[in-house]
Amino acid sequence: MDIGMVGLGRMGGNMALRLARGGHRVVGYDPGATARGAAPELETVESLQALVEALPAPRAVWLMVPAGAPVDSTLDRLLPLLQPGDVVVDGGNSNYRDSERRAARCRDAGVHFLDCGTSGGVWGLQEGYSLMVGGEAEAVALLRPVLETLAPAPDRGWGHVGPSGAGHFTKMVHNGIEYGMMQAYAEGFAIMQRKESMALDLAQVARIWQHGSVVRSWLLDLATDALERNPTLEGIAPYVSDSGEGRWTVAEAIDLDVSAPVITLSLLERLRSRENDSYADKLLAALRQGFGGHGIRPG
Amino acid sequence: MDIGMVGLGRMGGNMALRLARGGHRVVGYDPGATARGAAPELETVESLQALVEALPAPRAVWLMVPAGAPVDSTLDRLLPLLQPGDVVVDGGNSNYRDSERRAARCRDAGVHFLDCGTSGGVWGLQEGYSLMVGGEAEAVALLRPVLETLAPAPDRGWGHVGPSGAGHFTKMVHNGIEYGMMQAYAEGFAIMQRKESMALDLAQVARIWQHGSVVRSWLLDLATDALERNPTLEGIAPYVSDSGEGRWTVAEAIDLDVSAPVITLSLLERLRSRENDSYADKLLAALRQGFGGHGIRPG
Amino acid sequence: MDIGMVGLGRMGGNMALRLARGGHRVVGYDPGATARGAAPELETVESLQALVEALPAPRAVWLMVPAGAPVDSTLDRLLPLLQPGDVVVDGGNSNYRDSERRAARCRDAGVHFLDCGTSGGVWGLQEGYSLMVGGEAEAVALLRPVLETLAPAPDRGWGHVGPSGAGHFTKMVHNGIEYGMMQAYAEGFAIMQRKESMALDLAQVARIWQHGSVVRSWLLDLATDALERNPTLEGIAPYVSDSGEGRWTVAEAIDLDVSAPVITLSLLERLRSRENDSYADKLLAALRQGFGGHGIRPG
Amino acid sequence: MDIGMVGLGRMGGNMALRLARGGHRVVGYDPGATARGAAPELETVESLQALVEALPAPRAVWLMVPAGAPVDSTLDRLLPLLQPGDVVVDGGNSNYRDSERRAARCRDAGVHFLDCGTSGGVWGLQEGYSLMVGGEAEAVALLRPVLETLAPAPDRGWGHVGPSGAGHFTKMVHNGIEYGMMQAYAEGFAIMQRKESMALDLAQVARIWQHGSVVRSWLLDLATDALERNPTLEGIAPYVSDSGEGRWTVAEAIDLDVSAPVITLSLLERLRSRENDSYADKLLAALRQGFGGHGIRPG
Repeated sequence: MDIGMVGLGRMGGNMALRLARGGHRVVGYDPGATARGAAPELETVESLQALVEALPAPRAVWLMVPAGAPVDSTLDRLLPLLQPGDVVVDGGNSNYRDSERRAARCRDAGVHFLDCGTSGGVWGLQEGYSLMVGGEAEAVALLRPVLETLAPAPDRGWGHVGPSGAGHFTKMVHNGIEYGMMQAYAEGFAIMQRKESMALDLAQVARIWQHGSVVRSWLLDLATDALERNPTLEGIAPYVSDSGEGRWTVAEAIDLDVSAPVITLSLLERLRSRENDSYADKLLAALRQGFGGHGIRPG
Repeated sequence: MDIGMVGLGRMGGNMALRLARGGHRVVGYDPGATARGAAPELETVESLQALVEALPAPRAVWLMVPAGAPVDSTLDRLLPLLQPGDVVVDGGNSNYRDSERRAARCRDAGVHFLDCGTSGGVWGLQEGYSLMVGGEAEAVALLRPVLETLAPAPDRGWGHVGPSGAGHFTKMVHNGIEYGMMQAYAEGFAIMQRKESMALDLAQVARIWQHGSVVRSWLLDLATDALERNPTLEGIAPYVSDSGEGRWTVAEAIDLDVSAPVITLSLLERLRSRENDSYADKLLAALRQGFGGHGIRPG
Repeated sequence: MDIGMVGLGRMGGNMALRLARGGHRVVGYDPGATARGAAPELETVESLQALVEALPAPRAVWLMVPAGAPVDSTLDRLLPLLQPGDVVVDGGNSNYRDSERRAARCRDAGVHFLDCGTSGGVWGLQEGYSLMVGGEAEAVALLRPVLETLAPAPDRGWGHVGPSGAGHFTKMVHNGIEYGMMQAYAEGFAIMQRKESMALDLAQVARIWQHGSVVRSWLLDLATDALERNPTLEGIAPYVSDSGEGRWTVAEAIDLDVSAPVITLSLLERLRSRENDSYADKLLAALRQGFGGHGIRPG
Repeated sequence: MDIGMVGLGRMGGNMALRLARGGHRVVGYDPGATARGAAPELETVESLQALVEALPAPRAVWLMVPAGAPVDSTLDRLLPLLQPGDVVVDGGNSNYRDSERRAARCRDAGVHFLDCGTSGGVWGLQEGYSLMVGGEAEAVALLRPVLETLAPAPDRGWGHVGPSGAGHFTKMVHNGIEYGMMQAYAEGFAIMQRKESMALDLAQVARIWQHGSVVRSWLLDLATDALERNPTLEGIAPYVSDSGEGRWTVAEAIDLDVSAPVITLSLLERLRSRENDSYADKLLAALRQGFGGHGIRPG
């Protein structure tokens, strides 16, 4: 089918390519890049208007722009160009409450809005993406050919999970789980690394676990690769960013009165990784000195 | 090759069977069961002495008995029957410090001792086991045919990871990671389950994630099965046991001065799942009443 | 001085009384109660209008109504009755962002708004309240006589801590700390209670710690009282409510990229105390059965 | 009464002094110091033997030496010098299981052993110590005059809490609670410190809370002092030591199947404060790069 892809960065570019290679006609537009070298398989245009004009009605426009304001500003410019019956898909990591709001806004304009949680990262191009779609069934049916191509296989790795917002909600939780799993592996390997008396080969241990163990997973495959390339992880700062979904998951869990200690602590550890002069720890040191006369380290 | 298997329970019985099906001659003995129906592929005997006598030297005897005292008492009876050059493998979930001690004890008797961390659970029979082996290279070489059969494939899923204790050490950490991963999934699904307004089909979400997502894993495959069979998990008490390795991992991390909050909290949540009348929570309620006049629930 | 008190519940009633006993003229009004038996020391009126009319300009009106919508709806009705130069104080547990917003709204009407975090609970009547005030210095100066009376002593236990919002911000953090301290005591006493072999008298231990120990505190005094009255805490359900400030503290910490694990876990434990059928724990039990064949408890 | 004090360091020296000032005859001996300037109120001797000879039977010898091996080695040398009916008190931060063992050892020699948890730090000299005593009632009765003097007042701040080990057990839990409380304050002040837009005066906030607030405590008094002296805590490294009781409390809680997340996380945060090159965080950064192409910081 014909589809417009707005945003041709790391994720959008790869998705456009997977679609093109899958036989779809992809019209790409990147708001930020004028001269970005898009793949030759892609037909690219220089404006949203050109993108809309290049597509037959009902149009399908997939947004792969950064979450937050960029989605709203793209919608601001895109909606007036669309017609009732067209479909906009937000495939980025938007907050699900924003998606609920945007779906209502599109609905007022007669345009369908789908929120599609997209997992798979840079490997999606070759392995396919896991796609959780929220919105109206009618619009999902329209996008089905595209979803079947983006997914690892036509009948797996994608699904219509619920009403507007449900796609990004489940993706948010997915990322919360991802934080917890990553932290669990990271802690385990750190314990083994610290057990110097055993001189364990961590890449070997990871490789063993890839087959037959209870902890085998795709993340473990990645960890194995990382440890084989760089067992000491030298040159990598112990600084862990986060891009929002973990925070949202923690906030949502609390809103729902669900205790989620592991997902929560995984987020806090990331915050902690970015502290190199913790006021809290300084105060603890000062208090220990205060009551016990324990020495403090000059800092 | 010829191998004796001591302990024919859920794990040992399946391992013996996988070995027999793989062409090895397995002599089985179960200390606890007199009339347990062992698989017809297995040759079983009625005593440790008979087991030892049925094996050619150098003998290989694999212990698959409960961790702790049963391993020591089995060694007490087995060691006098063995000869220098024989090999004893402990494939259970023993504490690695016990394995270090037992290896020294066997060494004094001229007998090799291997500690083999074994992962794979009830699925190992068909899928193979992940095996982390600690001990002397010479003994590992002797056991190689058996390890290659137990593993998912001869060249993967098993390895000699280090000196005595290293097999059970890495298995301990494996289980700590397992706790963290399980807890991460459990929290994520609990958040989705509580989001009643979205009426998510949790089995569907799990199934989508199995393909292409960052959180795909074997544990997720099991979760998908569990949720498909019983989406509401009714009939299952929210009571989570633990069998020791998580506690050891937490203690080891602290001994090594490694902060492992996620593995630690995963253990604490299991303890918490078994509290139904928390004194701590009662005291919190009493304190809130004490300073704020907040009502307490009668309990 | 003259002051109006809106809200004569557990907190407001006591504060009005302390002010009256301290020589101030307190005009009380309770939006919710028609026939509540207010203390005879208080002059009460039947409407906001009557309250405003009973006060000389510049008027001081202290709100002690539930946080959230009640504060806004009270302001809706009160502001039109006030004149430039009057002062409204919100002494409740409002979210500091609401206070920032309300201060701006009042400022537009020429009315001063102070946000006053108030700690002390039901004991404040006799012991005085700890008061953290945010807003303009001019308005704080006007309220000084009242603040000096409400505080434990004129020169201690109260202060002007910063701009609008700062009073409720510091009170929010105060409550976050309170959660952490309470949880620390609760866990400690729970550990001792579980150590049955020592048959410890927990009230005695608490009493010992009240004098000379590092953990002595007012909360420990309350814990001692609670344990002396009811050492087994029988009749008290292990169910711990929360009234919002803890959640806000956790959210604020994350917004500020501050890792605050203890305050956070204190909140999560309260959520956990209210779960009696945890879906997460059920899924953990199902997973353990899935990979290890471990039995589950029927539930 | 007459008492021997073995160990005249920061704690032992002060305790000896408080006893001497309270009218007791204190014979001091410090195993480590030859020329340490002991207070002139103290009578000091140069050997354990001289100390024992200087005391009338039944002798009371108070040990204030570092926990662990020093207590055992002191007992090794002391026990042969004592007679049945004499009393040894271990007032240090020993592990309660060691105290149970030592009590049995002393009992075999006819000597009483008391384990005395001692709280109060460097402030105990002037304010008195909080003392939790475990052991036989008969020995506690013998030591009563000394305990009454060490405590803040004869009838408060000390008690016989249970059998041998109970004194150090309750002190261990006391310190676990202390960790949690300290961490709660530290996190709260760190949140306020990070809220730069409010420019809060943290010493002022602490001072306000000292009077009338729910979080007032002796630790808060110390925090106030620390913040008044050094509001930015500059010159203090964010490095927090621990001296063992927190670890023991965490281990004990797990042994007892009690979930104590706040005490546990307080310990982990201390471990974390000492990591400046976390392998776990490096692996997290590597994994994020692996699946999402997210940049890593060079380190």
